[in-house]
Amino acid sequence: MIDVSFLNTTEATDATRSRSYTPSNPYPVPGYYPQTPLSIFTSSPQIFERFDTDTLFFAFYYRTGTYQQYLASRELKRQSWRYHKRYQTWFQRHDEPTEVNDMYEQGSYIYFDYENSWTQKKKNEFRYDIE
Amino acid sequence: MIDVSFLNTTEATDATRSRSYTPSNPYPVPGYYPQTPLSIFTSSPQIFERFDTDTLFFAFYYRTGTYQQYLASRELKRQSWRYHKRYQTWFQRHDEPTEVNDMYEQGSYIYFDYENSWTQKKKNEFRYDIE
Repeated sequence: MIDVSFLNTTEATDATRSRSYTPSNPYPVPGYYPQTPLSIFTSSPQIFERFDTDTLFFAFYYRTGTYQQYLASRELKRQSWRYHKRYQTWFQRHDEPTEVNDMYEQGSYIYFDYENSWTQKKKNEFRYDIE
Repeated sequence: MIDVSFLNTTEATDATRSRSYTPSNPYPVPGYYPQTPLSIFTSSPQIFERFDTDTLFFAFYYRTGTYQQYLASRELKRQSWRYHKRYQTWFQRHDEPTEVNDMYEQGSYIYFDYENSWTQKKKNEFRYDIE
């Protein structure tokens, strides 16, 4: 009995925090799946330039408050998407606007419908208020 | 001076854990960006059926060890992708295999090159060993 207990005594290393990656919400996935995020996601932010727009939206709406949300927004802006504060989503000009002034511009836009369809949709005759 | 200090005294609620979402690696993003992940990601796993394949791969390789990795793998399988343990990536038949037996099948496959190009590539005359 004592021998068995000895196997479970605390060790000096128990106090040090493990360096291995531990997800904040672990889920039992197969052991042959990758267990740590690819290092390329943090070491090479340029990888965000290779992502599909859909992936950028996923990172933006899922990785909120993190570096990934920032990287996603940076790449979306680079691709001429603009974030609309009131609608909390991204717009891109579809055509040249029919009207542009200091207050707004008007025309056809593509926007990302994150709430219902998770797809890009088109809005015609839309007045995009300059914020 | 004392008045100012009083504004910063501890309160009973300081000991209780905040229920609001806090990312494990916070990053200073604009306050008008969404600050918490969309609830749809956990409340409606069907959303994974709407994601582009690229997004599924991102969730698989980035959200390792979490429910999102599981949901991504489930959706990839539903779309006839198969995970190859040795290559640690996903394969899909491009054509009907030219040969199928208990040990392997051979033919053209599409696989996801997560290491270098982050794109789908084609492998001809590939022998896919049954694991």
